Amino acid sequence: MSLQQIDATLQRELQQLAEQGRAKPRERVITDYVPAKNGSGPRYRLEGQQGLFIRMNSNSYLSLGNHPALIAAADEATRRFGTGPGAVRFIDGTYCHHTALEKRIALFMDKPAAKIFNSAYTANCGLALAINSATTLWAGDRLNHNSIIRAMRICGVPGENKAIFNHNDVQDLDRCLDSAAPGITRVIVVFDGIFSMRGDFAPTDRILQVIEKHKDRFADGIISVIDDSHGIGAYGKTGRGTAEFCGAAPDIIVGTFGKAFGVNGGFVCTSATIVETIRQKADTYIYTNPLSMADCAAATRAIDICDSKEGLDLLKTLNRRTRQFREGLEQIGLETIPGPHPIVPLLVRDTMRTRMLVNGLFDHGILAVGLTFPVVPKGDETIRFQINCAHTKADIDYVLEIMAKLVKKQGCK
Amino acid sequence: MSLQQIDATLQRELQQLAEQGRAKPRERVITDYVPAKNGSGPRYRLEGQQGLFIRMNSNSYLSLGNHPALIAAADEATRRFGTGPGAVRFIDGTYCHHTALEKRIALFMDKPAAKIFNSAYTANCGLALAINSATTLWAGDRLNHNSIIRAMRICGVPGENKAIFNHNDVQDLDRCLDSAAPGITRVIVVFDGIFSMRGDFAPTDRILQVIEKHKDRFADGIISVIDDSHGIGAYGKTGRGTAEFCGAAPDIIVGTFGKAFGVNGGFVCTSATIVETIRQKADTYIYTNPLSMADCAAATRAIDICDSKEGLDLLKTLNRRTRQFREGLEQIGLETIPGPHPIVPLLVRDTMRTRMLVNGLFDHGILAVGLTFPVVPKGDETIRFQINCAHTKADIDYVLEIMAKLVKKQGCK
Ligand SMILES: Cc1ncc(COP(=O)(O)O)c(C=O)c1O
Ligand SMILES: Cc1ncc(COP(=O)(O)O)c(C=O)c1O
Repeated sequence: MSLQQIDATLQRELQQLAEQGRAKPRERVITDYVPAKNGSGPRYRLEGQQGLFIRMNSNSYLSLGNHPALIAAADEATRRFGTGPGAVRFIDGTYCHHTALEKRIALFMDKPAAKIFNSAYTANCGLALAINSATTLWAGDRLNHNSIIRAMRICGVPGENKAIFNHNDVQDLDRCLDSAAPGITRVIVVFDGIFSMRGDFAPTDRILQVIEKHKDRFADGIISVIDDSHGIGAYGKTGRGTAEFCGAAPDIIVGTFGKAFGVNGGFVCTSATIVETIRQKADTYIYTNPLSMADCAAATRAIDICDSKEGLDLLKTLNRRTRQFREGLEQIGLETIPGPHPIVPLLVRDTMRTRMLVNGLFDHGILAVGLTFPVVPKGDETIRFQINCAHTKADIDYVLEIMAKLVKKQGCK
Repeated sequence: MSLQQIDATLQRELQQLAEQGRAKPRERVITDYVPAKNGSGPRYRLEGQQGLFIRMNSNSYLSLGNHPALIAAADEATRRFGTGPGAVRFIDGTYCHHTALEKRIALFMDKPAAKIFNSAYTANCGLALAINSATTLWAGDRLNHNSIIRAMRICGVPGENKAIFNHNDVQDLDRCLDSAAPGITRVIVVFDGIFSMRGDFAPTDRILQVIEKHKDRFADGIISVIDDSHGIGAYGKTGRGTAEFCGAAPDIIVGTFGKAFGVNGGFVCTSATIVETIRQKADTYIYTNPLSMADCAAATRAIDICDSKEGLDLLKTLNRRTRQFREGLEQIGLETIPGPHPIVPLLVRDTMRTRMLVNGLFDHGILAVGLTFPVVPKGDETIRFQINCAHTKADIDYVLEIMAKLVKKQGCK
C-alpha cells in the first residue's frame, strides 16, 4: 500500500492551516517536575529548553495532582488490582473503585446518582446518546465546548433540531425556546458552566428561570445540562461549581476529574433513571474500558479533600491568588474579563502583540496560552492565564513583574 | 427543576428493553484480586457473592496488568509527575511519557509515526475527524466495532458516503468499491482485525488485494484502516496482530493499550503526515486531557515486554492454553468458530440454554459472557470465553470439566 496520494493532499491542507495562522505549534514536552521550595511553587523542565518554567496554563486549580494522598491512593489501587480493568464495565470490568467514585461524586454534587466516563469529552457524548430522541430540540450556548458540539453529532441530531443562543444571553435562549417547532416533545438546554476561553460563567439561575417559563409546552419538559468542567472543585463557596455560585440546581451536571480534582475522567450526576439509561444506551460508556482503578481511587480521594476543611482552605488560597493576579494586571493597566474564576483572560486585542507577549513570557520561564483568531473572534485576541493553589504569592508577583516589563518594552498598554 | 416527565418516558424505554431481553443485567463488582498460587491462576471476589471466581472474560490476554514491571512503572510515573496531566496536549499537557509511548508503539508496529488517545474508542473517532472529507467513501465490514460506526457519525459522514460489506466477504467489498459514486476522491476501507464477538480475523491480505485493484480510480487512493484492538499483542507470530498473521501491511493501524497490553488507552500508527493531521484536526485528541503519565509508563513497559523473549514466551503460553481449551470443547462435542485467537466463542444456538449455561458456570465460580439476540443474530447465541496467560493448565481443565457436567445435566449437546 502507499499513502503518497492522501499524504500529498493532507500536506496541502496542513500548509493552508499554517498560512492562515491556524496551525497548532509543536507541542512542548514536560520532562521534569520540581517540587515547591523556599516560597516558590512547583516548576517544570521542558525538552530542549534551559531553565525552569512556571505553569500559568494548568487546569489543576487546586494542585491536587501532586498531593501525597492522591498519589498514595493511586499506587495502592494499582498494587492491589493492577494497571488496567481488562474489560468494559458490563463484562466484569467494574471494580469497587468505579462504583465508589460514582457514589462519591453523586454525594458531592448532591444528586441521586452518577455515572463515570473516561473523560468529560466522552461523558458529553454518552449523555447525548442516552437522552436524545428524534423529537428532541437541543439549545446550546454559542461558545459551548467542542465536546458538546461533537456530542450532538455522535448521536446524529439533525440541523433543524439544534438551536444556538448567543453567549450567556438568556433573552436569546427565550427566543430559541419560543421558536421550537411543533412536534418537539423534549428540549435539552446545554451550556458550559465556566467558559474555558474567557473564565466567565453561565447565568445558571436566569437560564433556569427562562426554562421554567417554557417547560410545560413539551411532553418531556425541558432538561437543563451544565457542563461545569472548569467550575466543579474550583468555584462556588464550597467548590460545587457554577450552580452553587449562582444558587441554582440544573437537572444534569457534567464534569471532569481532570481539572480541579487533578486526575482524569468525566462524570454525569443526575436522576437514577437517567443514569440507568446511560448504562443501557451510552455507547461511549458501554464499548470502551473504564478508567483505571488508580484514577478512580485518586479521584475519590480528591473529592474527599475538596469536601473537607483542607479543601475549603485550598479554595481560599486559590481565590486569594486569583485576586492578587487580577488586581496586579489592573494596576499595570491591562484589560481582563472580570470575575472570580482562576481563568484570567488578558485581552490584548491584537494578534502580533499576543504572540510577542506570550513569547516574552516564555523567555522568562512562564507558560501561558495565546488565543488568536479563529479560536477567538478577531479583536478578542487574548492571553489566557490560569491560577492554581500551588502558585505562591511570590510566583504571582514574579509573573506580574514580567508582564509589566514586557508591556512597557512594547510601549503599549 | 424536575425530571419527572423525562424520567417517566425513559422508564418506559428501559422497561421495553427489559421485555425484549435487550437490557444489560446489573453490573457485577470486583472487590478483590487473589494472586495465583499452587497451580491455580488469579481469582477474583465479587460484591455480594461467596467464593472465588476465575475470569474467562478478560481482554488482558497476556495478563500484563498485574505484572510487577508495569505496576512499578505506573507508580514511578505518578510519584514523579502526579496523578494527572492538568491540561490538554497542546496546552503543555504533553509529558515525556506521552511522546515516549508514541515512539514506542510506532516502533513496535513498524510505522513511521503514532498518536495516542485515551482509548481505541476515541482513537477511531479522532482518526475519522482527521481523514474524512466531503468526497470520501467509507467502506466497512458489517460486524465492525461500535466505535467505528460512531466515528463516522461524529464526523458527519452522510449515508450515501457509507458502504457496508458482508462480514469478511472480499467479493462484497469488491462490489462496494465498484459502485463508488462518481465524485468520490478518497475511499477508506475500515475493518476490525479480530472480531470481538467471534474471535475470527479479517482476511487482511485479500482485502488489500481488492483495494489494489481499485485504488487508481480515486485521486487520494484507497486507504486501509485496521482496528486490531483484540489482535495486537495477542496475535501473530510476534504479537503484531492480524496484519502479521496475514502477512499484510495496512496503511493505518488502530489499537488499544487496554487489552493484551493490560493498561488503558488507544493509538493510531501510520504516516507522519496523517499523524500530524490528527494532531491538528482530531477533536477527540485536541480537546480532552491525555492519558495519565502512569498509564503511558505502564503501556510503554508492556510493549517492551511484548518485544522481548519474555513476551514471546507469554504468547506461547497463551497459544498453548487456547489450544487446550478449544480441543477440550471439541472433545465434549461442542461447536466453536475455529481459529487460533484466545477469544473462543461457543455456539449454543439457543437463548435459554445460553443463559442456563452461563448461570451454571457462574455457580461454579466461572465468569463468561452470554451473547444473545440482538447482540448476535437469532440462532447464533453464543458463550464467549477468553483465554489469558495467567490461566493455568489446571484452570482450563476445571472449566472444561464444569462445561462437560453442565452439558450432560442439560441432556443436550
Ligand atoms: C475493535 C475494537 N475497537 C475498539 C475497542 C475499544 O477499545 P478501548 O477500550 O481502548 O476503547 C474494542 C474493544 O472493546 C474493539 O474490539
Ligand atoms: C466545558 C468543558 N467540557 C469538557 C472538557 C474536556 O474535559 P476532559 O479532559 O475530561 O475530556 C473541557 C476541558 O477542556 C471543558 O472546558
